[in-house]
Amino acid sequence: MKKDKLNPKDNQDNPEIFNAAVLKKIQQVRNSQPSIEVLISGILSGEISALSRAITLIESNNKNHFAKANSIINTCLPYANQSVRIGITGVPGAGKSTFIEAFGKHLSSLGKKTAVLTIDPTSSISHGSILGDKTRMDELSKDPNTYIRPSASGDTLGGVARKTRETIILCEAAGFDVIIIETVGVGQNEIAVHSMVDFFLLLQIAGAGDELQGIKRGVIEIADAIVINKSDGDNIAKTEQAKAELNRALHFFPPKKSGWTPIVSSCSAKNHQGITEIQQIITDYIELTKSNTYFDKKRAEQNEFWLLETINEQLKQNFYGNTEIQNLLEKTKKAVQNNESSPFAAAQLLIETYFNSKDQSCS
Amino acid sequence: MKKDKLNPKDNQDNPEIFNAAVLKKIQQVRNSQPSIEVLISGILSGEISALSRAITLIESNNKNHFAKANSIINTCLPYANQSVRIGITGVPGAGKSTFIEAFGKHLSSLGKKTAVLTIDPTSSISHGSILGDKTRMDELSKDPNTYIRPSASGDTLGGVARKTRETIILCEAAGFDVIIIETVGVGQNEIAVHSMVDFFLLLQIAGAGDELQGIKRGVIEIADAIVINKSDGDNIAKTEQAKAELNRALHFFPPKKSGWTPIVSSCSAKNHQGITEIQQIITDYIELTKSNTYFDKKRAEQNEFWLLETINEQLKQNFYGNTEIQNLLEKTKKAVQNNESSPFAAAQLLIETYFNSKDQSCS
Repeated sequence: MKKDKLNPKDNQDNPEIFNAAVLKKIQQVRNSQPSIEVLISGILSGEISALSRAITLIESNNKNHFAKANSIINTCLPYANQSVRIGITGVPGAGKSTFIEAFGKHLSSLGKKTAVLTIDPTSSISHGSILGDKTRMDELSKDPNTYIRPSASGDTLGGVARKTRETIILCEAAGFDVIIIETVGVGQNEIAVHSMVDFFLLLQIAGAGDELQGIKRGVIEIADAIVINKSDGDNIAKTEQAKAELNRALHFFPPKKSGWTPIVSSCSAKNHQGITEIQQIITDYIELTKSNTYFDKKRAEQNEFWLLETINEQLKQNFYGNTEIQNLLEKTKKAVQNNESSPFAAAQLLIETYFNSKDQSCS
Repeated sequence: MKKDKLNPKDNQDNPEIFNAAVLKKIQQVRNSQPSIEVLISGILSGEISALSRAITLIESNNKNHFAKANSIINTCLPYANQSVRIGITGVPGAGKSTFIEAFGKHLSSLGKKTAVLTIDPTSSISHGSILGDKTRMDELSKDPNTYIRPSASGDTLGGVARKTRETIILCEAAGFDVIIIETVGVGQNEIAVHSMVDFFLLLQIAGAGDELQGIKRGVIEIADAIVINKSDGDNIAKTEQAKAELNRALHFFPPKKSGWTPIVSSCSAKNHQGITEIQQIITDYIELTKSNTYFDKKRAEQNEFWLLETINEQLKQNFYGNTEIQNLLEKTKKAVQNNESSPFAAAQLLIETYFNSKDQSCS
């Protein structure tokens, strides 16, 4: 049941389509793809419809769309890179949507344009999104300064990472000042997001000894700020305690290369309290890292990281996708597991088979 | 000034060699390599001289030795895997040598045969070994039940890891009951060692707030026991405090897949105190993990890990060693760092160049 947003058939049960003639007309309109040039000029003038269509091309797994998307991205690149990229993570229930809604509206009130992108590769397993859709951020989605775009679902983390990175470029070229990457805290996601943002914010809630949950997942180590949400009513005392515990925990970690000392803060997103303070923390961070050149250095490193990461991924894909290797691999793994062959000698054999195989792309 | 232990020329300035005739005779004897069969039967009968020669073959970077080493390893494999493999790490000054000396002698007194291997890839940078040579463990090196072998120096971590893994197999085939892998705590080493041992012991010393140093390096997370050494005299009170702090820190980490709860203990290796207790901890661990099948599962996983790790390393080596890629890579990295090209499009181009290049091994 894979959905392709370029294919209007998915909308057949949409109530607005009440007869075949109307359906056909809508299909015709939707099928008439604007040219790459039209999309690019639309993006650069900040047209949301052009931006959305271009992102859909990025998300498509159709090979024809791949070349078009690459061409759009490379043309947009010189106009990108002017935004602040913020990663926001937290376990389900931490109040990420409410926080982003309050934060985005605050930014909008300052005249800033914000794009909210979500990374949710778990949906490929659950066949439904943990993060839900944009209706979660009801008010924010109506804000003219804000653009909310859920991630491509049904994909690997690597695939979602590539698509999100490229979507960031297009959003920046379209004039967005702040890019928020939201992810749900379920393992590897945070590390991938960390390698594509400037500032990484961990959202938590106070309660039942869970304050240090982030340490367990290795997230506290990469956070630039830890924000305790839902600091209202009965929770205020618990929040203060959680903040103290987190501050103690932060001492366990070495100083950051950024020269920044992670800050523990709190807010009540529901009541719009503490939001200005969090924006100030981010502003301070950007100011510090721009003045000590870490900001640009990190972005350059991230670009190089994704270059090498993509190469290594593709080398592996080619190897493990090779027919002869596929035929041999399970048997080899078993032999190695059972100590019938040394891992190094077995690897040597597989590598030789691969480079001698006719099935390889180089033949 | 690379040393090759198979080449006796290094010994020319040895005082024992006082004239050309004697030198020639010694060279002839040393050049007469025993056959693979002789080495294998020597190893299986527990002859240290055969074991040492075979390890030297493993450590050699000569391609002719490579095939011989592989053949010896594969023949020895069915006789291996009966030992307990223990990784020991700690920052310089924690007293690793003194601890291993006390521990090894205790094992020897119980009739156990112990092999001590060291991993020290840092020596390739410093051109000298941080861990020093076996004379550090003066008494233990004279113990007939113990075999001490420093790691191959002047090599990468990956190279040292392969050689150590293969050395473990030969030591086990030679009848050693306990294999100790010693490494100095300087970063990635511990993770490599963790993936080749059954039990991982972190040695620390109490003092000036350094108790949690292991957390910073990510080592506490993988330790099965943390032992505070030098718990004698004035240090005893400090040791108790450090133990309490470490026990609190351990709560931050999720339960281990082994079902084992890491234990904080102390000893005075110098005074041979606490050594029996540590051996008991290891025995308890082995008992638990053998009965819940984690022991065998972990070894099988480690074998598979090294199979895949070696494959991925070799794929990368082939790619980055390709002449056309070498000519393009720096320019591409710069373009990507400066946002002149998207990392993904640039990776695509390099991959296509690689698979079309005639320089590749498959041509």
